[in-house]
Amino acid sequence: MKAFVYVSLKKSVLDPQGKTIQGALKKMGYKTVSDVRQGKYFEIQLDNGIDQAEAKTQVEKIAREVLTNPVIEEFQYSLE
Amino acid sequence: MKAFVYVSLKKSVLDPQGKTIQGALKKMGYKTVSDVRQGKYFEIQLDNGIDQAEAKTQVEKIAREVLTNPVIEEFQYSLE
Repeated sequence: MKAFVYVSLKKSVLDPQGKTIQGALKKMGYKTVSDVRQGKYFEIQLDNGIDQAEAKTQVEKIAREVLTNPVIEEFQYSLE
Repeated sequence: MKAFVYVSLKKSVLDPQGKTIQGALKKMGYKTVSDVRQGKYFEIQLDNGIDQAEAKTQVEKIAREVLTNPVIEEFQYSLE
């Protein structure tokens, strides 16, 4: 089973890296881009023996405790 | 319209950052995690006037030319 975890900065937190990319895109002529935010993305391969509920619990715990800084970041995940 | 671009290292490229996370998880007792790979994730806000086909073209171009290093990385994207 594979889990995908997406970690992004909370909406209230400034994202200078995203702003830089947005500025660069503007200069390059992409006028339609009004905002860019950057985050992190993790692919976690779990043993195939694990069931859906157990996988969900584990991935949530990993995302919350290891991959995310709860002060400034939030996460979403999906299982496949 | 919002675009989500996921940039990850090609399968053939070593991912030391992912390996480090995997090692840490193993030490913490997560025995079911057999692999971790890290990538980047971008949320791109496009002007609402833009149509689906135009958005697709633009986002593909941005992902290929700006967000991805084609030598070692590959990307996927979705529109919403």
